[in-house]
Amino acid sequence: MRIAVLGTGEVGRALAGRCAEVGHDVVVGTRDPARTRERDGYAGWLDGHPEVRLVTNAEAGAHAELLVNATNGAGSLAALTDAGVAEHPEHPGLVVLDVANVLDFSGGGRYPGIGAAIDHSLAEQLQAAFPAADVVKGLNTMNCQVMARPDRVPGEHVTFVAGDDEEAKATVRDLLSAFGWPEHRVLDLGGLDAARATEMYLPLWLSLSGAAGTAEVNIAVCR
Amino acid sequence: MRIAVLGTGEVGRALAGRCAEVGHDVVVGTRDPARTRERDGYAGWLDGHPEVRLVTNAEAGAHAELLVNATNGAGSLAALTDAGVAEHPEHPGLVVLDVANVLDFSGGGRYPGIGAAIDHSLAEQLQAAFPAADVVKGLNTMNCQVMARPDRVPGEHVTFVAGDDEEAKATVRDLLSAFGWPEHRVLDLGGLDAARATEMYLPLWLSLSGAAGTAEVNIAVCR
Repeated sequence: MRIAVLGTGEVGRALAGRCAEVGHDVVVGTRDPARTRERDGYAGWLDGHPEVRLVTNAEAGAHAELLVNATNGAGSLAALTDAGVAEHPEHPGLVVLDVANVLDFSGGGRYPGIGAAIDHSLAEQLQAAFPAADVVKGLNTMNCQVMARPDRVPGEHVTFVAGDDEEAKATVRDLLSAFGWPEHRVLDLGGLDAARATEMYLPLWLSLSGAAGTAEVNIAVCR
Repeated sequence: MRIAVLGTGEVGRALAGRCAEVGHDVVVGTRDPARTRERDGYAGWLDGHPEVRLVTNAEAGAHAELLVNATNGAGSLAALTDAGVAEHPEHPGLVVLDVANVLDFSGGGRYPGIGAAIDHSLAEQLQAAFPAADVVKGLNTMNCQVMARPDRVPGEHVTFVAGDDEEAKATVRDLLSAFGWPEHRVLDLGGLDAARATEMYLPLWLSLSGAAGTAEVNIAVCR
């Protein structure tokens, strides 16, 4: 599958690397590839992942059958716009896997600002902005290393998918399966409005991570 | 210990009954005991729990060494005010265990309105209104039957405490231990601001409960 990852930070690197590793054709989109190359060791990361190509957001959008939104949530709308998701000429019904959260750490203090609330979420904002795409929320409830390699954390911990298009969710499930997520640990929460629930969970994840002293922490469901 | 439970709904009944069962001296506070008796089978519930006395909120406040806020979150401030928590003459340092959430189901739809956000929580609102009390947030992340009897759900599922007073948290921990919560499954998230995290988790709990088809569901932490 042709996958474009938007986002060149820790999350984008973890997911782009893993998508390539499990056999997909992966590009990473960024505003300015030359500048990204110079930043935060990105050139070194690319050298270690020669199968991943760094391109502009627009080129990434044109490449994508599946687009992974791994940008900072505050910049997601702009990045997907740059990627041409609005008119995405080659692939109507583009699947967008949105793993982002709108977190604002600029205020200091224990908790960041957070963009989700009970009546809205980033994923729904993206779906409303790009109605021809099929947005699926997933993986946003954990550290990116665990997203990409669930076996880094022991136990029956879970991830969630939410979205309004069943076929798009099935595409995302296939990708998660390739990452190592057993089917019974990918919980379908239903429509995309459930993204409110998973985005609002972030403060608890931050607390759990703080209490555990590690980012490699996740939750299991007991019933 | 002399415990007053504010709230006569399902949560108040489950917790008052359990507090009495584990040996505490329990009253339940309500605005109008005569009216409560006539409502929703409450008289029958009291007949089944003769060791629990139904009193006014003011009498409940005067009784309490530990006060359990099991009211609907939207009415909590008024109930604690009626209970005289502001001036609580006999017990400065009254411990308030706040298990409530501000949920508004009046709008219909999948998710209720919710009173918590990243910059405020019900527990902090109560602490600010009653500075002489020591508010501890706890148990608000699950169904009340599971709060009172954690062994109704299998597995290493957890509950959380948050509060600014260590002694008050220790008092709450003792109560949870009597309910059947093993010490290692009561996770201390630190100061009372962590109530934001546990109150914001409610939409995910609602989703998990919906997906599981049962209210008897809770989360475990994997690391």
